[in-house]
Amino acid sequence: MGFHFELLHRDSQTRGRLGRMETPHGTIQTPAFMPVGTQAAVKTLTPEEVREVGADIVLANTYHLYLRPGHELIRRLGGLHRFMHWEGPILTDSGGFQVFSQRALRKIHEEGVSFQSHIDGSRHQISPEVAIDVQEALGADIIMAFDECTPYPVTRDCARQSMELTVRWAARCRRRKTRSDQALFGIIQGGMYPQLRAECTGRLVEIGFDGYAIGGLSVGETKPMLYDMVEASEPHMPEDKPRYLMGVGKPEDLVEAVLRGVDLFDCVMPTRNARNGFLFTTHGRVVIKNAMHADGDGPIDETCGCYTCRHYSRAYLRHLFMAGEILAMRLNTIHNLFFYLNLMQEIRAAIRDNRLARYRREFYERYQAGTGGQGPNPVQSSGFPQDV
Amino acid sequence: MGFHFELLHRDSQTRGRLGRMETPHGTIQTPAFMPVGTQAAVKTLTPEEVREVGADIVLANTYHLYLRPGHELIRRLGGLHRFMHWEGPILTDSGGFQVFSQRALRKIHEEGVSFQSHIDGSRHQISPEVAIDVQEALGADIIMAFDECTPYPVTRDCARQSMELTVRWAARCRRRKTRSDQALFGIIQGGMYPQLRAECTGRLVEIGFDGYAIGGLSVGETKPMLYDMVEASEPHMPEDKPRYLMGVGKPEDLVEAVLRGVDLFDCVMPTRNARNGFLFTTHGRVVIKNAMHADGDGPIDETCGCYTCRHYSRAYLRHLFMAGEILAMRLNTIHNLFFYLNLMQEIRAAIRDNRLARYRREFYERYQAGTGGQGPNPVQSSGFPQDV
Repeated sequence: MGFHFELLHRDSQTRGRLGRMETPHGTIQTPAFMPVGTQAAVKTLTPEEVREVGADIVLANTYHLYLRPGHELIRRLGGLHRFMHWEGPILTDSGGFQVFSQRALRKIHEEGVSFQSHIDGSRHQISPEVAIDVQEALGADIIMAFDECTPYPVTRDCARQSMELTVRWAARCRRRKTRSDQALFGIIQGGMYPQLRAECTGRLVEIGFDGYAIGGLSVGETKPMLYDMVEASEPHMPEDKPRYLMGVGKPEDLVEAVLRGVDLFDCVMPTRNARNGFLFTTHGRVVIKNAMHADGDGPIDETCGCYTCRHYSRAYLRHLFMAGEILAMRLNTIHNLFFYLNLMQEIRAAIRDNRLARYRREFYERYQAGTGGQGPNPVQSSGFPQDV
Repeated sequence: MGFHFELLHRDSQTRGRLGRMETPHGTIQTPAFMPVGTQAAVKTLTPEEVREVGADIVLANTYHLYLRPGHELIRRLGGLHRFMHWEGPILTDSGGFQVFSQRALRKIHEEGVSFQSHIDGSRHQISPEVAIDVQEALGADIIMAFDECTPYPVTRDCARQSMELTVRWAARCRRRKTRSDQALFGIIQGGMYPQLRAECTGRLVEIGFDGYAIGGLSVGETKPMLYDMVEASEPHMPEDKPRYLMGVGKPEDLVEAVLRGVDLFDCVMPTRNARNGFLFTTHGRVVIKNAMHADGDGPIDETCGCYTCRHYSRAYLRHLFMAGEILAMRLNTIHNLFFYLNLMQEIRAAIRDNRLARYRREFYERYQAGTGGQGPNPVQSSGFPQDV
């Protein structure tokens, strides 16, 4: 069995979509959020815990696994699923974003990118062909085309050149692919230029992919720009293919992007923030190290059903965090991922009932009613546009 | 229901004992090993995982919890069990060992010890009375008398003075205690002088405690000294009270001490070694970062039934460790604690069948047959005496 996407329902008032992705390792209800397992592990958690917080699919980073422990090793050991003991669907990125993030260490050619390892300084070349070969060795259910992640800010000319290189590379990826059990998604670039985004989308659709990703965002642009770029690409994407907004984002970004027709997300925010003691709740952000939690007998969030909130007080979580206990990172990660995955579940229910616009209003009202003093209020920081 | 110890069976050929400790939070099968939860958490693990690896009881450190988050806070939040979400039995040490470990920062008087916090340099005094008050606030099932941990090496005169102070302090602890639901254990000191150990034991038994601990070991002495000190104390202990060898030790130490009549152990070795990538197996020590494990498709130990060995290859565990993933520490900790608790289970079965001496021989044969090149061979390092 290969990959199949089914569009189940459209919200009657927004562009929100309810769908289902079938993969060789199981089904993903969309809109979906993917926890990030950069080095073949969602940081601090076991696969059982990742499943328990509600994840259908995880993301792993090709760049990191290519360098360590190496894709050939993982292939010899039966592929990434077996290696990391995650039997569900996996998506691997192409490595492009990570390579391009290290500006000082890489050089771009028509052929591909040469770069130095961030681990030992060794020299490597990744071309579109190599990126596909590596991802075929890893064996994820969904693999990504190798793209040039356009920097920000950048001139329109540079953005065009970068976008055109990405399209040529995408075609090479499409040709290189051999495994029929893996889905290949193309990645839309074009900087912050709506017309380039639209053009890129159209040209990728001509090549033909199993899904379309919006890349090159979360690179420092404003919230309106982020949403504009989604809106510039979305009308040109086929209805019957999944849409993936890469590396995004905050809870309110997920709500906003789903409203604009996105089906799939990944972001390190819930896991990274957890390790730093920043917790998401329905009423805003909780900074667990704050003295106000020192004798807090209740959970992080009274309304949360996660393992952490069911069994531990804020006082205990603060104690673990202040004492530098690793268990603090685990319990915080469980809570934050549960929050994200529960948010996606609520979003899916809202689409099913044609009330996504109302859900969005209520989402912001809860945040605003919360303890805004504990962190930036997402409503104030997001610059979200008018109700759709 | 308070504390009760029942001696169930004596091995016919050694001094090994099978027993059962009843506490308000559950039953402990002895001989037992207690995982160490210094700061109200067994490092990296949840209480459910601690239970799953086979632990009946955990130890927490009074010194650490007194300083952070504070025993009064824990009392207000319902006591240590509720605070750390561990519903089973808990033993707290008295804080003595930790205070005395910081030689530069403390001063000993007849009244007690004044010291500076290792966290913020603040000044504190712990007397026998304070140690009991703090432990009553924490609310463990078993609490320990406040002792002076005699340094090593030390003259006989110093060891005698230290031992006599410990006995006077033990009597003060006995008088201070108010809670009838907690058991109080006395701690035997006397340096490496068998006669002092014997005398201390007798004097503590005169005062009368619910159990007797052998303290002041694992401080740099040789293996024969360690075993000699156990043998010096044991004949003077009442048969109907549990015996606890504090801070010991390696797997072979547990076997040797059980043979000499000990019922209870704690040690950071399985958890600390795990975090550093040193793994215990039935055939010797495994150093997971060694290149020989890079493509190891099998588990750490083919004969092990722990979660880690059931689901993960050595190659994956090595990858996680080399990549600095916290999950490496968790999976290693689960394995090492399972090894220790499984060892205790095997020891209990051997006592039940009157074959502890044979079990000991087989234990060493397995270790010797193993991959000795991976770490110190316990048979060579332990200097264990002739078969009993």
